[in-house]
Amino acid sequence: MGKKTAKTRQSKETQVLETFNISKHENFSEWFTKIVQIAELADMRYGVKGFLVYQPWSTRSMKKMFELYEAELDKFGHDPVIFPSVIPESNFQVEAEHVEGFAPEVFWISTAGSTGKLEERLALRPTSETAMYPLYSLWIRSWRDLPLKLYQSGKVWRYEGKSTRPFLRGREFIWIESHNVFTTMEEAKAQTREDMQISINVMNGRFGIPFIQFQRPEWDKFAGAVHTYAADTLMPDGRFLQLPSTHLLGDNFSKAFKIEYMDDEGNSHQAFQTCYGPAISRIFGAMIAVHGDDSGLIFPFEVAPLQIIIIPILAKKESTKVLKYAEELKAKISKMGYRVMIDKTDRRPGEKYYFWEMKGVPIRLELGKKEAQNNQVTIFRRDTKEKSVIEKNSLNESIKTISKVLNTNLKNRAQEFFNSRLSRANSMDELVNDIQARKMVKIPWCSIDLDGEECAEQIKDQLAGAEVRGTDVQESETPSKDDKCFICQKPAKCFVYVGKQY
Amino acid sequence: MGKKTAKTRQSKETQVLETFNISKHENFSEWFTKIVQIAELADMRYGVKGFLVYQPWSTRSMKKMFELYEAELDKFGHDPVIFPSVIPESNFQVEAEHVEGFAPEVFWISTAGSTGKLEERLALRPTSETAMYPLYSLWIRSWRDLPLKLYQSGKVWRYEGKSTRPFLRGREFIWIESHNVFTTMEEAKAQTREDMQISINVMNGRFGIPFIQFQRPEWDKFAGAVHTYAADTLMPDGRFLQLPSTHLLGDNFSKAFKIEYMDDEGNSHQAFQTCYGPAISRIFGAMIAVHGDDSGLIFPFEVAPLQIIIIPILAKKESTKVLKYAEELKAKISKMGYRVMIDKTDRRPGEKYYFWEMKGVPIRLELGKKEAQNNQVTIFRRDTKEKSVIEKNSLNESIKTISKVLNTNLKNRAQEFFNSRLSRANSMDELVNDIQARKMVKIPWCSIDLDGEECAEQIKDQLAGAEVRGTDVQESETPSKDDKCFICQKPAKCFVYVGKQY
Repeated sequence: MGKKTAKTRQSKETQVLETFNISKHENFSEWFTKIVQIAELADMRYGVKGFLVYQPWSTRSMKKMFELYEAELDKFGHDPVIFPSVIPESNFQVEAEHVEGFAPEVFWISTAGSTGKLEERLALRPTSETAMYPLYSLWIRSWRDLPLKLYQSGKVWRYEGKSTRPFLRGREFIWIESHNVFTTMEEAKAQTREDMQISINVMNGRFGIPFIQFQRPEWDKFAGAVHTYAADTLMPDGRFLQLPSTHLLGDNFSKAFKIEYMDDEGNSHQAFQTCYGPAISRIFGAMIAVHGDDSGLIFPFEVAPLQIIIIPILAKKESTKVLKYAEELKAKISKMGYRVMIDKTDRRPGEKYYFWEMKGVPIRLELGKKEAQNNQVTIFRRDTKEKSVIEKNSLNESIKTISKVLNTNLKNRAQEFFNSRLSRANSMDELVNDIQARKMVKIPWCSIDLDGEECAEQIKDQLAGAEVRGTDVQESETPSKDDKCFICQKPAKCFVYVGKQY
Repeated sequence: MGKKTAKTRQSKETQVLETFNISKHENFSEWFTKIVQIAELADMRYGVKGFLVYQPWSTRSMKKMFELYEAELDKFGHDPVIFPSVIPESNFQVEAEHVEGFAPEVFWISTAGSTGKLEERLALRPTSETAMYPLYSLWIRSWRDLPLKLYQSGKVWRYEGKSTRPFLRGREFIWIESHNVFTTMEEAKAQTREDMQISINVMNGRFGIPFIQFQRPEWDKFAGAVHTYAADTLMPDGRFLQLPSTHLLGDNFSKAFKIEYMDDEGNSHQAFQTCYGPAISRIFGAMIAVHGDDSGLIFPFEVAPLQIIIIPILAKKESTKVLKYAEELKAKISKMGYRVMIDKTDRRPGEKYYFWEMKGVPIRLELGKKEAQNNQVTIFRRDTKEKSVIEKNSLNESIKTISKVLNTNLKNRAQEFFNSRLSRANSMDELVNDIQARKMVKIPWCSIDLDGEECAEQIKDQLAGAEVRGTDVQESETPSKDDKCFICQKPAKCFVYVGKQY
């Protein structure tokens, strides 16, 4: 961290300390809005609806999140590319369902310079299928060129009609999109399963976010996809938030964009495709919502913008000695590869404690006269707010241990909350009650094919906007003969989850 | 690297091996165009002028370049942010000189969705001063908030009139831009010197690119700046290429955007600003142009997409043993933290050698029956094409050594070429000759203030477009009484360099 962070907050400090104590579960909306502002995660005053300024505290964390996500994609054999951010209108129009789905959300560039009218309008990409696939069609010649597994990290723009919320829904967001091509439908299906595994490995394994992965109903899938699988997590107010989705595109796009390969005998075949899109800015929003508490943010250790804050407690007499000790420890910790800083501002230690707790720094070291004299350190972990005194020479081990147990604890308690909001309803009345109690409710269901859409509309009408989210891809239970759709009373083909969306 | 890279090239291999042998110095333009295509750095067939598709081989290298550059900025106390890619027209218009300079290059967004006309046109940012400074004005209240040193990595878009070249000049490019605010002009000046030091540390120190940093003449500075300092390197054909520039903005923008701070006594002051913009895509283009040879690319070790390629030489008999040995070494090297791959394709070893030399991989390990039996490795370095046989247990040390000497060698030979193209002219005739010989020529000069512009125009006219690049910021020589401007014959105030621009 630069010197900057410490300095900025000096002038804002008083305000911060007075104000941050909000019940996350009772008043999530206020909690979220305030923490974004007070922890300086993002500024909403840019002046263009849905466009956000990400400040250093969130940017550093999102950079780590990108790094971990990209490393996981690399591990599974994906390669990075960078495609243009604009798409010629003629390419954008190629796949009929896709254009129908996305056209209402496109920002259009039609002029350049003072007078220059462009030959063709350019779409500011809302997603990159129609940017990438014309090139895929040129790159893929034979089966030897497959699988082709490429991803890019960057921004996309969507002219969202819905109300925007920082990180959670905007008109510009940052994400990774992975676009893959295979010789067979089976390989493409396997890729969607691999994508879901990557979601588990990174979002749950590294960021500690709990979720269920759903196969979305036919009426709620990606424009141009055969099937859509999406992860839903739960916000503290009991509403679903959609996280990464992976789409089985089959040969819909490969037909439209002529993505074909020759087999060994010279015969031409249509290729099969998938795409996967983890939106890092939204995942960041979910992560802070899921892990924070009434005192502010709590970052998982790996993705914390600052991992360890050192607070020197300076009595007048021994302050030089304590500061020297702080510098010694900082150098030592820095060498271990952690992101560490000393808070040298002239505020009282208690104020500093509250401030860095609000900012979500996982580990705090308190150093006073006693610690300096005895070669000890008082170490504090943010998640449980526990303090203990350790010997200086066990510092490395203590940091390692705390970083692990803190991550596990955050993950477990998030999962516990998530599970506590899952329920099973056996009747429409139970469903109504559970939805009112802000739960994600499992119910027997007629069909997630198009013939189930009408019942889903009725659910929406009768339950103030609650939605059928789809079938849990891990679901092991099959409906019995007695399980009927609550709406049409037809025998249930599956179980689905119902809940309100964020 | 994923499995993908090896597979793609299989089907393209024959073509590659037949064709790549081009004299870089005699035919740079062809060399550059061909290597971009054959090494699969970028695809120029996207269909929108000046917009490029960056393929994995360049993307991986540029990601490392970003990483090293950002780490250096962090070290100097800069913090990362992410600002929107669009700028409301009213903000864009605020600083008069700036808008005059950039307006001809702006892509404009004026509609969204099927019907939605936007309330205000949005500029696709060509640079981010007018995006960031309105927020700076909100963030900066007192001297305690300064210095503010923020940077962002991302794309910018400029509707360039000039002909575009992959990496070197396009309408969309990727860069880092650093925007800084200070209480005094002196601090701002110091920041421009720090920026120039960062250019030296990273571009020369890590990427091995030689350059001179110039103070640009008054008629050739950034729109809205007090002074512009820019690094120029030299392409193999003897033409200048501008690399990062840092701009002393003084209080031009802070007046326009009301960026003010209170001192300790409550008095309000205008702040002083700088900005700095290393364009990674262009620096990548310069790096490959500077280091490549007639056989293809040569990457500095740190930024190589793949650092070590292992070629197993499989005689029928011992192939299992050799492959096992290759896997053992790969695992070992991977553990050391290097990017390594085994080429397991069924091509002949000689073909593989040429291929990976063309791709610029710094180190090649050749493993045959003999090596496997004797626990040895044949190690090849790309820059000098030297081979030697080493013991397996000295592999770690050999890689470390070669990675260092290869970097030093690349840097030194690039500097030697650069120096060989510098000259000093004492008369107009000498200048004409040296420019014809494709040199960067130092000459005595009347003035880099506006009163020198007319002479610079004459230089352009008389020397087929050669330009006055400015004064070397490291220049120690001052003109003697006898030094006169070749054009106006007035006493020289300074020395400048003249050359043709890429």
